[in-house]
Amino acid sequence: MTLTVRENEWMYIDSVLSSALKEDIGSGDVTTSALVTANRQSGASLVAKDDFIVAGLPFADRVFHLVDPGLKFRSLKKEGCRVKAGTVIATVSGNTAALLTAERTAVNFLQRLSGIATLTRKYVDAVKGLKVKIADTRKTAPGLRYFDKYAVRAGGGTNHRFGLYDGVLIKDNHIQAAGGIGKAVRLARMRAHHLLKIEAEAAALAEVSEALNAGADIIMLDNMPLERIKKAVGLIRGSSSGVIIEASGNVHLDNVRGIAEAGVDIISVGAITHSAPAADISMRFD
Amino acid sequence: MTLTVRENEWMYIDSVLSSALKEDIGSGDVTTSALVTANRQSGASLVAKDDFIVAGLPFADRVFHLVDPGLKFRSLKKEGCRVKAGTVIATVSGNTAALLTAERTAVNFLQRLSGIATLTRKYVDAVKGLKVKIADTRKTAPGLRYFDKYAVRAGGGTNHRFGLYDGVLIKDNHIQAAGGIGKAVRLARMRAHHLLKIEAEAAALAEVSEALNAGADIIMLDNMPLERIKKAVGLIRGSSSGVIIEASGNVHLDNVRGIAEAGVDIISVGAITHSAPAADISMRFD
Amino acid sequence: MTLTVRENEWMYIDSVLSSALKEDIGSGDVTTSALVTANRQSGASLVAKDDFIVAGLPFADRVFHLVDPGLKFRSLKKEGCRVKAGTVIATVSGNTAALLTAERTAVNFLQRLSGIATLTRKYVDAVKGLKVKIADTRKTAPGLRYFDKYAVRAGGGTNHRFGLYDGVLIKDNHIQAAGGIGKAVRLARMRAHHLLKIEAEAAALAEVSEALNAGADIIMLDNMPLERIKKAVGLIRGSSSGVIIEASGNVHLDNVRGIAEAGVDIISVGAITHSAPAADISMRFD
Amino acid sequence: MTLTVRENEWMYIDSVLSSALKEDIGSGDVTTSALVTANRQSGASLVAKDDFIVAGLPFADRVFHLVDPGLKFRSLKKEGCRVKAGTVIATVSGNTAALLTAERTAVNFLQRLSGIATLTRKYVDAVKGLKVKIADTRKTAPGLRYFDKYAVRAGGGTNHRFGLYDGVLIKDNHIQAAGGIGKAVRLARMRAHHLLKIEAEAAALAEVSEALNAGADIIMLDNMPLERIKKAVGLIRGSSSGVIIEASGNVHLDNVRGIAEAGVDIISVGAITHSAPAADISMRFD
Amino acid sequence: MTLTVRENEWMYIDSVLSSALKEDIGSGDVTTSALVTANRQSGASLVAKDDFIVAGLPFADRVFHLVDPGLKFRSLKKEGCRVKAGTVIATVSGNTAALLTAERTAVNFLQRLSGIATLTRKYVDAVKGLKVKIADTRKTAPGLRYFDKYAVRAGGGTNHRFGLYDGVLIKDNHIQAAGGIGKAVRLARMRAHHLLKIEAEAAALAEVSEALNAGADIIMLDNMPLERIKKAVGLIRGSSSGVIIEASGNVHLDNVRGIAEAGVDIISVGAITHSAPAADISMRFD
Amino acid sequence: MTLTVRENEWMYIDSVLSSALKEDIGSGDVTTSALVTANRQSGASLVAKDDFIVAGLPFADRVFHLVDPGLKFRSLKKEGCRVKAGTVIATVSGNTAALLTAERTAVNFLQRLSGIATLTRKYVDAVKGLKVKIADTRKTAPGLRYFDKYAVRAGGGTNHRFGLYDGVLIKDNHIQAAGGIGKAVRLARMRAHHLLKIEAEAAALAEVSEALNAGADIIMLDNMPLERIKKAVGLIRGSSSGVIIEASGNVHLDNVRGIAEAGVDIISVGAITHSAPAADISMRFD
Repeated sequence: MTLTVRENEWMYIDSVLSSALKEDIGSGDVTTSALVTANRQSGASLVAKDDFIVAGLPFADRVFHLVDPGLKFRSLKKEGCRVKAGTVIATVSGNTAALLTAERTAVNFLQRLSGIATLTRKYVDAVKGLKVKIADTRKTAPGLRYFDKYAVRAGGGTNHRFGLYDGVLIKDNHIQAAGGIGKAVRLARMRAHHLLKIEAEAAALAEVSEALNAGADIIMLDNMPLERIKKAVGLIRGSSSGVIIEASGNVHLDNVRGIAEAGVDIISVGAITHSAPAADISMRFD
Repeated sequence: MTLTVRENEWMYIDSVLSSALKEDIGSGDVTTSALVTANRQSGASLVAKDDFIVAGLPFADRVFHLVDPGLKFRSLKKEGCRVKAGTVIATVSGNTAALLTAERTAVNFLQRLSGIATLTRKYVDAVKGLKVKIADTRKTAPGLRYFDKYAVRAGGGTNHRFGLYDGVLIKDNHIQAAGGIGKAVRLARMRAHHLLKIEAEAAALAEVSEALNAGADIIMLDNMPLERIKKAVGLIRGSSSGVIIEASGNVHLDNVRGIAEAGVDIISVGAITHSAPAADISMRFD
Repeated sequence: MTLTVRENEWMYIDSVLSSALKEDIGSGDVTTSALVTANRQSGASLVAKDDFIVAGLPFADRVFHLVDPGLKFRSLKKEGCRVKAGTVIATVSGNTAALLTAERTAVNFLQRLSGIATLTRKYVDAVKGLKVKIADTRKTAPGLRYFDKYAVRAGGGTNHRFGLYDGVLIKDNHIQAAGGIGKAVRLARMRAHHLLKIEAEAAALAEVSEALNAGADIIMLDNMPLERIKKAVGLIRGSSSGVIIEASGNVHLDNVRGIAEAGVDIISVGAITHSAPAADISMRFD
Repeated sequence: MTLTVRENEWMYIDSVLSSALKEDIGSGDVTTSALVTANRQSGASLVAKDDFIVAGLPFADRVFHLVDPGLKFRSLKKEGCRVKAGTVIATVSGNTAALLTAERTAVNFLQRLSGIATLTRKYVDAVKGLKVKIADTRKTAPGLRYFDKYAVRAGGGTNHRFGLYDGVLIKDNHIQAAGGIGKAVRLARMRAHHLLKIEAEAAALAEVSEALNAGADIIMLDNMPLERIKKAVGLIRGSSSGVIIEASGNVHLDNVRGIAEAGVDIISVGAITHSAPAADISMRFD
Repeated sequence: MTLTVRENEWMYIDSVLSSALKEDIGSGDVTTSALVTANRQSGASLVAKDDFIVAGLPFADRVFHLVDPGLKFRSLKKEGCRVKAGTVIATVSGNTAALLTAERTAVNFLQRLSGIATLTRKYVDAVKGLKVKIADTRKTAPGLRYFDKYAVRAGGGTNHRFGLYDGVLIKDNHIQAAGGIGKAVRLARMRAHHLLKIEAEAAALAEVSEALNAGADIIMLDNMPLERIKKAVGLIRGSSSGVIIEASGNVHLDNVRGIAEAGVDIISVGAITHSAPAADISMRFD
Repeated sequence: MTLTVRENEWMYIDSVLSSALKEDIGSGDVTTSALVTANRQSGASLVAKDDFIVAGLPFADRVFHLVDPGLKFRSLKKEGCRVKAGTVIATVSGNTAALLTAERTAVNFLQRLSGIATLTRKYVDAVKGLKVKIADTRKTAPGLRYFDKYAVRAGGGTNHRFGLYDGVLIKDNHIQAAGGIGKAVRLARMRAHHLLKIEAEAAALAEVSEALNAGADIIMLDNMPLERIKKAVGLIRGSSSGVIIEASGNVHLDNVRGIAEAGVDIISVGAITHSAPAADISMRFD
């Protein structure tokens, strides 16, 4: 997974950024329109006010561009790098009124995404040296999943499926509805297209065995205590099945390394997207 | 400010909720389509997994409704009330497949909004007994301002302006661009329509005096240390001007009461919308 | 209020202009497609066919641009200036087919906006020398409020609130619903955000007093005969309250100066947007 | 042409009405939200404040419905009928807040459309007893053509083509571009599909003859003085061609009958849509 | 009818092409994102894999442009020309990832439109030397009518009306609803605007006479056997009415010349748009 | 894969159907509006005019519903069943004008989808008794993929991935860009999320071996002659890897059984969506 924004993604990105601008600007920026003459030019800096991992500069750049294509944005830091309070992470210059009108929306994106990247990096650092991946979930802010998942990658995390459409994940309610884990995995294999793997959730060890026998490609250990995780990993690895093991639920910064050391392949953490505090960034005029 | 969702707001709300659903569902919920027969019916509960202030049930209700108008949603708790872990806050029943497909989007709204309401309530409680109001800012998640501001009200907070279009707030960069605070206030008075008040930001006491003399309706004390806030309040109240005083910047749960006691009218806090951890809520099938 | 179109407004403007073009062009301009070869180039002039105040050239320019970015538009007159019949107000040249297809939509905007500016200017001229402002209302053509209000400014008028969202204006029905003018003003003060003033409508002198006592920031004298307006102004000015006085209803070109001389601050006139006859403009090929 | 709104048209109508509501309501009706409790019910009447021809009640009805499907609207007058000042033309009742929020948008449509119908009727009455039709043009308010043309029908007028896509009308610039009127008519006949007639504009009598010889189905006498119109009609009728004759340009209430008596089939008048003063209508609460 | 894409049509074209891209790309091209580095450049050729008539290159060009404005597309063949298997019809070069992501959508348009042009040309060739025109119908792929009708022109065919809005075509059900063909034609003449001709459908010779008497401008011979077509043509031509004759229904490549020789003006064929097999085209990297 | 249309899919379906209706109706159905009185009621039947597999009735039903919710549609045949010429497959009754306006769009969907289902069924029947699946490709009509893929399922086929976003399929150009098949598979495994399998295309036997060694989950035999397919299947099955085998390219009704008998798991056929002739269906009024 990379941080490159592909050309084909701008069409979508622009629609979200434009909505965000519309939400803030509405029928017009009354303060700026009243006070700032149309031709005035300024330069400004985006400044870190605490320590964090940078994420979102390409989107901040684009927000300014959408308000006024004449604004010049220059990123001074790479996405995913760590900065200290006081660092200028980007500069932007051009029409003063446009700068003032775009400021809040651009900074809101930067603060949210850098916040997510920063929390993700903490989890990634906590498992340093181990082969496990830290993954996100679908617990993202409604309408911002593309951006939240980008920030997870900037933080060194990895993305889980993007939505309900690009991955099969059989949860307990699906199992109940299908009438058992074996039947569920078989049905999924038959009805989902052949390019999708089948992941099944298991809370008890018996369920792990069942999922294993049913031929699941991935088993998610759901909300298990550490001891049970260890046993489950033993069970699965012992079966020489090539099954991928994911742990999820009740993962915190202080227990994530333990879970990782139990030998799972992936640990997914909802908090990195739904509970990351915003990074503190402000725009300062020269 | 009330928690009533007016009839005329559903048109907008639905467009945001539909986008969120589209983001998650995309070309279809492959797991549910494969496993759950079309006619199966179920009941489910939305359960609090920690203690929080409830916010967002009308939107969760609507998410389920948009996926399948046949689903029946029943709120068991009032918006803005405090619940303990284990409380069932709502039930929803009907077509099993629809429940499963809508679940994540509905819960994502609930978790975010309840999280914001919960953090807001902490600030509100911290200034209990004083006449001050806790207000939000424009530091909301892009595209979700309507919802974030609703959650602030559910938490007992008050809303600041909604965007750049419905309030004049003169910041230091505007002042610089206009050529002084007096000129800025006068220009704003002349060019903004007559139903808008003029708020000006001041960081130093000299600026407070200047804003006062310029006839600002509201003065925002920006990032001032507590001692300076006290002096500023004295200065303003001494002028018998009827000016409203707002404090903003570097407000935390441990210093908010001090600031309130200094006698300001409004304290605005970015963190309640940009850094509130999500409440923990899950949907449990019967 | 200025005539500058801010960069951030084009996004919205373009959506309205594009809709208007789509409305006229539909599945294609069958006449032009049949008759005009693809490469033919022409020049044309936009000519005043009676005397009026010019408004709308930036939008006419953009209409041509949206149909064909290769068209070159040159404004020969400033927005808000008075022109005589026969004056060329702008020229446009480039692809002949594009000129013909864009013509009607561009001219429709120009005719409407110049018509509004012209009628507004008549009211503004009628109160020349007095400190009063001529303001518009929300009685604009559905979907064209941004443009209609722009034309009012071009005519020398001032804008009232833009919609229901950026100003509190308490009308008799609100007062009745709230249970009295005092209660209404107090509720509005409490529930609307602190950057908004409170305007209340009064038809009788008793209501003026009540609004005054209730602390309204602005009082609108609604449909009052001139004598009553004079008394109301006396009452309000006598209270040394700093309250702004607006007169509205049954304002015509032959009574507007009398109302102005009574000492009100603002006179709002629905007719300038809903009943202004179009200016006569046509596009003439060289 | 009828006044029936077909089922398939509501999809389009709703999109325009919704945009108009969004334009006025934006982020919310701050006055009503502050003052009117959510459950309050009221009844109101739409009252004529001068004499006019009614047009637009189905759209006013729909505006109220879009804001709140619970509102009950009852038309008391038929579209196209004449009413005196003081007449109640419709009643609407239900949620008070919804009534107040929808009021302006609903009335703006009614006032504009009734104004157009009223002016159209004046032209229709002026040619009473003659076989001529009064038609509109494409000089409608941008984005409101559907509605403006509906109002013309309500006034007793007839609609010309709806846009550039559903009729061939060859103007002088097209003729010049095509290289002569004969060539233009021939090209149009060849390239436009076979269900479209060919109308050509003529300003001089020589052009009328040319158009006649070229086989135009309809000839538009453009801006001709009355004497020339008479000669042109003689010329065309003398040719026993079955050609339809349209007069356009510089048509006023005081010369329209003369033009009609000259024997043309259709008189098209831009003013009925671009310069009709709004009818005066207000909503009065019971 | 020409193959020129007018400037004003791109706005619409782009919206369809963008939807098609969105349909294919969704949340991202996972294969290309994983495998192709962001800066890699390539060149590719669009190659005919069987013999066909080329149509759609301007749209393929635009698809590539929408994905990445940096891609360079070069058409090597003219629209409407015949190519042999193995011919390179266009080249495109630039960013490799963008090429791969755009490929399928661009080729899907090319294959469909070239397929339609190819089948249309077969019908056109079958009536070579006769004055008849081969026309399309409204039996196009939903959402693609603009493109399908373009391809018909590329194949040498002619377009019938574009939709229900730009032509009157009275079918048997309309006749029944109106109460007879005479009444139907009269009503249509009265109520449709004067720039539209009236076409009526006839299945029996009696109906042809009736339509003729009713003054229809065009008579469509619907699903008639060849002998009846001949008689109908005789009947109509004998009336010296200038009526246009269209034949439709059960037209195949092996009977189309016979129908044409019967002397009709237009033969409309649904199959050319709804049943044309796709041309075989593939994109080959250099 | 099932034929159930899930509740959450209607939001998307409606947007496509509405666009299709808008495309056909535009500014109004001029024929029906002129001829059919507003209240007239009729009943009609949708009749098969040749033999085919039925597909698309739920969408036809919805088209009628979108034009007029009062229309009653009754399916008489199940999706995917075979009907003979002359069979009434559905009836629809209600407002005559609405029926006439909706007819073409509804039937266009039915004809296309039934055509696809019919051709798909021919392939499915050709491999009857064998364990192979007939799958579609991304060669669908732009904007109609959801519908085309539905029709494939109605015909008894199976769906391949829906777009570029829900499956990894490594083609020769990807391999070249990645620098070899081994590297490509490894990169895909690392960068795509863990719920996606990796499919790689191979044209030569050496490539099959390479893909096998690289650990591809699925190998697509691209455009191979039958003998090579047999060898490739032998190679892969001999490796006891559990790899899925797909054949694609140059598949026709007369060679599909041979390919199937070679032992592949899936045969994907572009023709079933891009070259299926439309089924012949017409709407007949009672």
